[in-house]
Amino acid sequence: MPTTLIRGGTVVSATGRVAADVLVDGETVAAVLAPGSTLLGHDLAASVDRVLDATGRYVVPGGVDAHTHMELPFGGTAASDTFETGTRAAAWGGTTTIIDFAVQRAGERVQDGLAAWHAKAAGRCAVDYAFHQIIGGVDDDSLKAMATLVDEGITSYKLFMAYPGVFYADDAQILRAMQQAAELGLLTMMHAENGPAIDVLAAQLVEQGRTGPYFHGVARAWQLEEEATHRAIMLADVTRAPLYVVHVSAKQAVQQLAWARDAGRNVFGETCPQYLYLSLEEQLGAPGFEGAKWVCSTPLRARAEGHQEHMWRALRTNDVQMVSTDHCPFCFKGQKELGVDDFRAIPNGIGSVEHRMDLMYQGVVTGEITLERWVEITSTTPARMFGLYGRKGVVAPGADADLVVYDPAGHTSIGVGATHHMNMDHSAWEGVEVDGHVDLVMSRGEVLVDADGYHGRPGHGRYLRRDLSQYLV
Amino acid sequence: MPTTLIRGGTVVSATGRVAADVLVDGETVAAVLAPGSTLLGHDLAASVDRVLDATGRYVVPGGVDAHTHMELPFGGTAASDTFETGTRAAAWGGTTTIIDFAVQRAGERVQDGLAAWHAKAAGRCAVDYAFHQIIGGVDDDSLKAMATLVDEGITSYKLFMAYPGVFYADDAQILRAMQQAAELGLLTMMHAENGPAIDVLAAQLVEQGRTGPYFHGVARAWQLEEEATHRAIMLADVTRAPLYVVHVSAKQAVQQLAWARDAGRNVFGETCPQYLYLSLEEQLGAPGFEGAKWVCSTPLRARAEGHQEHMWRALRTNDVQMVSTDHCPFCFKGQKELGVDDFRAIPNGIGSVEHRMDLMYQGVVTGEITLERWVEITSTTPARMFGLYGRKGVVAPGADADLVVYDPAGHTSIGVGATHHMNMDHSAWEGVEVDGHVDLVMSRGEVLVDADGYHGRPGHGRYLRRDLSQYLV
Amino acid sequence: MPTTLIRGGTVVSATGRVAADVLVDGETVAAVLAPGSTLLGHDLAASVDRVLDATGRYVVPGGVDAHTHMELPFGGTAASDTFETGTRAAAWGGTTTIIDFAVQRAGERVQDGLAAWHAKAAGRCAVDYAFHQIIGGVDDDSLKAMATLVDEGITSYKLFMAYPGVFYADDAQILRAMQQAAELGLLTMMHAENGPAIDVLAAQLVEQGRTGPYFHGVARAWQLEEEATHRAIMLADVTRAPLYVVHVSAKQAVQQLAWARDAGRNVFGETCPQYLYLSLEEQLGAPGFEGAKWVCSTPLRARAEGHQEHMWRALRTNDVQMVSTDHCPFCFKGQKELGVDDFRAIPNGIGSVEHRMDLMYQGVVTGEITLERWVEITSTTPARMFGLYGRKGVVAPGADADLVVYDPAGHTSIGVGATHHMNMDHSAWEGVEVDGHVDLVMSRGEVLVDADGYHGRPGHGRYLRRDLSQYLV
Amino acid sequence: MPTTLIRGGTVVSATGRVAADVLVDGETVAAVLAPGSTLLGHDLAASVDRVLDATGRYVVPGGVDAHTHMELPFGGTAASDTFETGTRAAAWGGTTTIIDFAVQRAGERVQDGLAAWHAKAAGRCAVDYAFHQIIGGVDDDSLKAMATLVDEGITSYKLFMAYPGVFYADDAQILRAMQQAAELGLLTMMHAENGPAIDVLAAQLVEQGRTGPYFHGVARAWQLEEEATHRAIMLADVTRAPLYVVHVSAKQAVQQLAWARDAGRNVFGETCPQYLYLSLEEQLGAPGFEGAKWVCSTPLRARAEGHQEHMWRALRTNDVQMVSTDHCPFCFKGQKELGVDDFRAIPNGIGSVEHRMDLMYQGVVTGEITLERWVEITSTTPARMFGLYGRKGVVAPGADADLVVYDPAGHTSIGVGATHHMNMDHSAWEGVEVDGHVDLVMSRGEVLVDADGYHGRPGHGRYLRRDLSQYLV
Repeated sequence: MPTTLIRGGTVVSATGRVAADVLVDGETVAAVLAPGSTLLGHDLAASVDRVLDATGRYVVPGGVDAHTHMELPFGGTAASDTFETGTRAAAWGGTTTIIDFAVQRAGERVQDGLAAWHAKAAGRCAVDYAFHQIIGGVDDDSLKAMATLVDEGITSYKLFMAYPGVFYADDAQILRAMQQAAELGLLTMMHAENGPAIDVLAAQLVEQGRTGPYFHGVARAWQLEEEATHRAIMLADVTRAPLYVVHVSAKQAVQQLAWARDAGRNVFGETCPQYLYLSLEEQLGAPGFEGAKWVCSTPLRARAEGHQEHMWRALRTNDVQMVSTDHCPFCFKGQKELGVDDFRAIPNGIGSVEHRMDLMYQGVVTGEITLERWVEITSTTPARMFGLYGRKGVVAPGADADLVVYDPAGHTSIGVGATHHMNMDHSAWEGVEVDGHVDLVMSRGEVLVDADGYHGRPGHGRYLRRDLSQYLV
Repeated sequence: MPTTLIRGGTVVSATGRVAADVLVDGETVAAVLAPGSTLLGHDLAASVDRVLDATGRYVVPGGVDAHTHMELPFGGTAASDTFETGTRAAAWGGTTTIIDFAVQRAGERVQDGLAAWHAKAAGRCAVDYAFHQIIGGVDDDSLKAMATLVDEGITSYKLFMAYPGVFYADDAQILRAMQQAAELGLLTMMHAENGPAIDVLAAQLVEQGRTGPYFHGVARAWQLEEEATHRAIMLADVTRAPLYVVHVSAKQAVQQLAWARDAGRNVFGETCPQYLYLSLEEQLGAPGFEGAKWVCSTPLRARAEGHQEHMWRALRTNDVQMVSTDHCPFCFKGQKELGVDDFRAIPNGIGSVEHRMDLMYQGVVTGEITLERWVEITSTTPARMFGLYGRKGVVAPGADADLVVYDPAGHTSIGVGATHHMNMDHSAWEGVEVDGHVDLVMSRGEVLVDADGYHGRPGHGRYLRRDLSQYLV
Repeated sequence: MPTTLIRGGTVVSATGRVAADVLVDGETVAAVLAPGSTLLGHDLAASVDRVLDATGRYVVPGGVDAHTHMELPFGGTAASDTFETGTRAAAWGGTTTIIDFAVQRAGERVQDGLAAWHAKAAGRCAVDYAFHQIIGGVDDDSLKAMATLVDEGITSYKLFMAYPGVFYADDAQILRAMQQAAELGLLTMMHAENGPAIDVLAAQLVEQGRTGPYFHGVARAWQLEEEATHRAIMLADVTRAPLYVVHVSAKQAVQQLAWARDAGRNVFGETCPQYLYLSLEEQLGAPGFEGAKWVCSTPLRARAEGHQEHMWRALRTNDVQMVSTDHCPFCFKGQKELGVDDFRAIPNGIGSVEHRMDLMYQGVVTGEITLERWVEITSTTPARMFGLYGRKGVVAPGADADLVVYDPAGHTSIGVGATHHMNMDHSAWEGVEVDGHVDLVMSRGEVLVDADGYHGRPGHGRYLRRDLSQYLV
Repeated sequence: MPTTLIRGGTVVSATGRVAADVLVDGETVAAVLAPGSTLLGHDLAASVDRVLDATGRYVVPGGVDAHTHMELPFGGTAASDTFETGTRAAAWGGTTTIIDFAVQRAGERVQDGLAAWHAKAAGRCAVDYAFHQIIGGVDDDSLKAMATLVDEGITSYKLFMAYPGVFYADDAQILRAMQQAAELGLLTMMHAENGPAIDVLAAQLVEQGRTGPYFHGVARAWQLEEEATHRAIMLADVTRAPLYVVHVSAKQAVQQLAWARDAGRNVFGETCPQYLYLSLEEQLGAPGFEGAKWVCSTPLRARAEGHQEHMWRALRTNDVQMVSTDHCPFCFKGQKELGVDDFRAIPNGIGSVEHRMDLMYQGVVTGEITLERWVEITSTTPARMFGLYGRKGVVAPGADADLVVYDPAGHTSIGVGATHHMNMDHSAWEGVEVDGHVDLVMSRGEVLVDADGYHGRPGHGRYLRRDLSQYLV
């Protein structure tokens, strides 16, 4: 494989920035060097196959999106991005690793669910990928199967406190799964919403004729996210299991995380770009059925209640540790429209895998977060959290050469004129402007995106066996 | 200057660890490389002047001790370490940067105080050094002089809520200083104890015949540290000034920091090894006058109240961000003895500058903190907090080659038989055993300590002009 | 009916104490008068049928025990006190009103459950009684039946988050019941323990051979009381239903109540004497099977964790508003012994209805609470909380003449030599000594207990139709 | 003295309401009786000198205003109400007890300050009065003099953390005073604002030309009230002294009180009607110099920040225990105008002594508080807090016959057309409408106000020697 020197840039890590060149040898970073391209008199630029100029730009580790749902069957349809289209879109946006969720349902074997996911992804991905395992049916068999996951390179699994009859686990099941996880070292990921209570409220709203997308947000009240978050924390406390709460959207849920963390518990939270930028009033409350584009769970929250502002603060205070997308795209035509008469039938999900790096960089521009924090929440912490650090999440010798050259003087217009690359007929981010630009994306030494466009291909991306979480204290 | 290759080690940063070699060219790190010592076919080991083996050991950035008091005049005597003896001891222990406190007193010019400190330090230091500025008398002149500090490379200054008549600033003075600091970007460091209240209690105790060292700890009640911490936070809030609270010892003070930080304020705290390991009952309460060895302010706290345990937790939760020593040594004979009849006359201070890296590494051994957190609290965060990152606090190209090779399989016995190198006739750490060892210490490319002993010299250490804090959010 | 003058005593209310005589005319208090027994020249003492001397003693409103379970079927047996024996014991101890729990189970009609309770109690009670309604099976029928309760004089009902398969309500059921309660003005009483999780832990303990009474306390971990308390608070918040948590024992559950109350929510908590005085280590951990005497749910908590001390504090701070007994007695022989091989089969319950007034007065003696607070938590607040104020809970004109003359100079030995009057073959309070004594007990003008002994009779006690809670803010 | 029967009303206490007649014999309540006016066949109505009808109305204990400043010298002028005019206004509004502040200043004898206050008040008051003692200069002499206060019937004293150079006490002084108070059983009342910091901000504002009344509120930032409140709590904690914070206006200060109280500390807070109804934006920010009418300290707070709403909630949650007026009236002409060029020269104070009962009753009308809570916060708790309970604060035999007959169907227009009775040329409450009316006011058996108007007289009011606080837990 070729050797590459990326020179003239500013390498940014979670703790700071240094002017440095990066030497890539084959798939990995061979060295990070003082700028100048010579080493002990050796002219590196002359020795490498390729020199890439990063002058005036940031060189950062490729994005790690730890929460995607490619081809997820949901509500009688399936997420519209395949591993091929979804990872290509990820690559376009500077995300070089995704962690998707293999699904086991009640009555199915965990091994079969995992195998199905491998079958969907193998040979199709543009960037590296790993899996979490959804345990949709906790029983003796699935608990036993959890013991095989670490060997499969899967060190985290997900439970749902929502969706009774689909993925829902009751408290007895959660407790048993967490006990097993604590034993094995697995990280428990939790969809924390009180599903049984939500379903009562949702049915009542529909009965009252309140069937539009806005009422999706009403039914999924913040109290029921807060409650489930607290419950998950306490069940984790009983079992001594570390806990990772996915797609946190309510400020009160954040306060529960902060409370647990102040007490020294290994409790973590992820949020998503939609919970930082979008709202119940503006998006879910759009005229007519338009709001269906933003139906996802947990739902967008009321801006008047300050959730978005609080969430940015939580990113700064590290009460929330990282940002994933919960990428789960559905087309408007034929998919979102399934729920035109009943919000409960709208497939839940928003597509963002392509835009996470840009959207979060905009937080640097507006002063919400520092440049270092941007790298931390989009790459370094996701890698540490899920056992990929060393290979991913850092620009360091020996690490996979997953790199992004980001231009702070560039500009990115999202979604205008359907220019994005996700397999969707619309964008949840239509019209958003970002003051920055992904100039170059490299995955294990291969340039996937540069000024000439897209050079990636299905099958470049490899399955990543993950280590246990490196983020526990 | 010579070139050096440190090979075979594990380079540890605040976020993770990688197997990597470090190439030093002159005073700085030229490259961090994948292990193997060849680069693009170039045999580095053969090209350098010196190869140091770090196999099986950690290569970490040199320690940054952000709180020392060399030759500080206090209570009619002066701290017993000069810059020469103190920085030599620091080097022995793997600390390659100290930040000492230049002193301005009421009625004196800030510039004169600073000049005096430069005079004490210049040409005498074994490792690099920087200064904070104590403003012991806030008035129009000293406020105006604060504006010159940034140009002097001094980006932090310290106020005292304790010691009325000596360094004490009242709330009006604190407010004015913080306003000025917010304007200038200076970081306000605060000795947070309610001095006027403490002095009343202390006088009453002495009047009651309670004159021994133990009563030093009684007079300086945790309530009066907690209170001052809260007050400093609120005065900082009014002025929008970032705040750094020095030598936090009470768990309730930590809770105030956590409260402020949860609210998104730029409030930081440092603790010291003595508040993690030692206690009111065991040390200050030692028989006779023995406790005088551990008279420092803030005081050691009661283990029965759980302060030490809470402080370790705070280091994990990042409610406390870093560990300094507050190194301020006094000999027992002739110095501590000044207070044999009245604890108020015991010079306040403990000497630890040599032991911080080892003492904190022991927290890794006992499982209190992770290896990465050890690097973060002893080096990376101190460097970021005080504007040294890039030069110090990280192993990265372009950074000063301040490196420590630490052997986790080594062993260090502290203080037994007076083997330490601080200018003291005793040790506050007598008899402590640490499962780890500083094998090699390098400062800007020069080996100061290795298996053959000490190779440092007065004058190697240079004055560091610091940037503004790089830790603000 | 006769007239009575109680003279010379100190009438104590929830807010203070006054020297006053009390004139009883028939069943009610006719007047509270300045001492001296004359009114406008009228010699009252000469005009009444009976003069009772209360000199040097407190005259307080009769105790209201808002949580008893007479003849409750539980675990294949039934609580050993009938309404006859239980209310007689209550009278002996100065409690002149009980509120017992009528039971509806899944599949039964609420009306039938209530009728059965009326049948048990009618004509048998020594003191007045009222009912809460247990809704053990929330469904359309029982929800509809809740609407009839207010007319029956039942303004509170109880749900269980524990005991799956018996009384357990899931979150969807709880939500629906609370919605109905909010609509009707009913107060929701909650047994807040996460039953499904507890049952998993309990089964595991038994499987491990940990079958003794102590493990009852281990299985019912404080985290699972805290969690359920939080969940109940949030479900109540969603539905705007006031909430009353029964038998709170964990300090962390108290903290949840305090948190909810600080936010202005109508959330209340009751504790019981056993959670103030007894502990996991001392009682549940008694040698052999002895601990079975103290098996109740929520369980006794570990003294080493400070629950008891915190609970006393909560009584002072009004984070817990009142004290009931949760009187649910079982004999050791033949009842408690059912669980000799498996703590899960030990009937849950402690008998205390006779001792509540004395046990809580001991808190006055030891300085834990004030005299006024004693009256408030044992009588005034229970009456207000459950819609009996005006008739019960206060010494005031028009109120039922339910009065206790309490001698602070008296002494009461509990349980020694089986001198108590509950239908039990042991006492949970064996050997407790109280510095105070119930000298006289009057119920609606009739003296039930005095120095000559017991004068009560089955059938004196009447059913009380209750108003809506008078304690809401 | 005559006998009076008040019949047909509803007697309201802090815990509930009962239909009852009240018999007054001379200066005290002789009996509270079941309605009907006969007792044991005795026709009371025929036996008394006077029968007053209270049908359809509330009979409540006379108001106790625990914070007034009659004739207080302040800023070169003096509060415009004398004890004669001020207590007459109080009577008009249903307040039958005031507690005013005797003043000692630095360098003066406490005894002299007290004597001066007795001289001002004696023979001039329309209602009963008591004193707190301001200790404006804490030194050995005044500390010693504190020991004489209990014998003078003065069981509370006040310190100021504001007003350096006038009443200000520094932390050493506060600590010493609290120690003495804890010893003596005195309740420490605290003006909790950080005066030295405020004075810096105020001077800066004036220097910037921000001289209007609005900037009074800006200078006295909520942070500086919150801070001082916390500091007072901690100094009280060190000394084990109970603490009562006067005129709390900031929600963050309330949060400090709640925090202290949750921890079981004897910490109390009073607020005033102005902090419940008025705001920085609307009143202090009125056009021109109009805002001067509402210049008081602590200042009115920003409604946009939610202080008023939070304060009502705190009244419900008992985080704030009672409502006083801080009555300190100044005329606009000649007094408020002193500060027309500099807000610092505007005399601090608002006159409300006449309106407190009405203004707080309006909170009952709007549903902010219950009827019982109205009685509690305006009369019962003030009496208990300051050692007057039994005589004041309750309708009970033996109590002083200080009674108000309040008509919930009445109406009161405040201030319109200068109809109030305070010695002011304006009203801070101009135009406020209250749905309720003070129909009759009785003080120790004498009717001061009824439908015929005012019957009071200077000299009716007597000095009240107070007991120690009856509110401590």
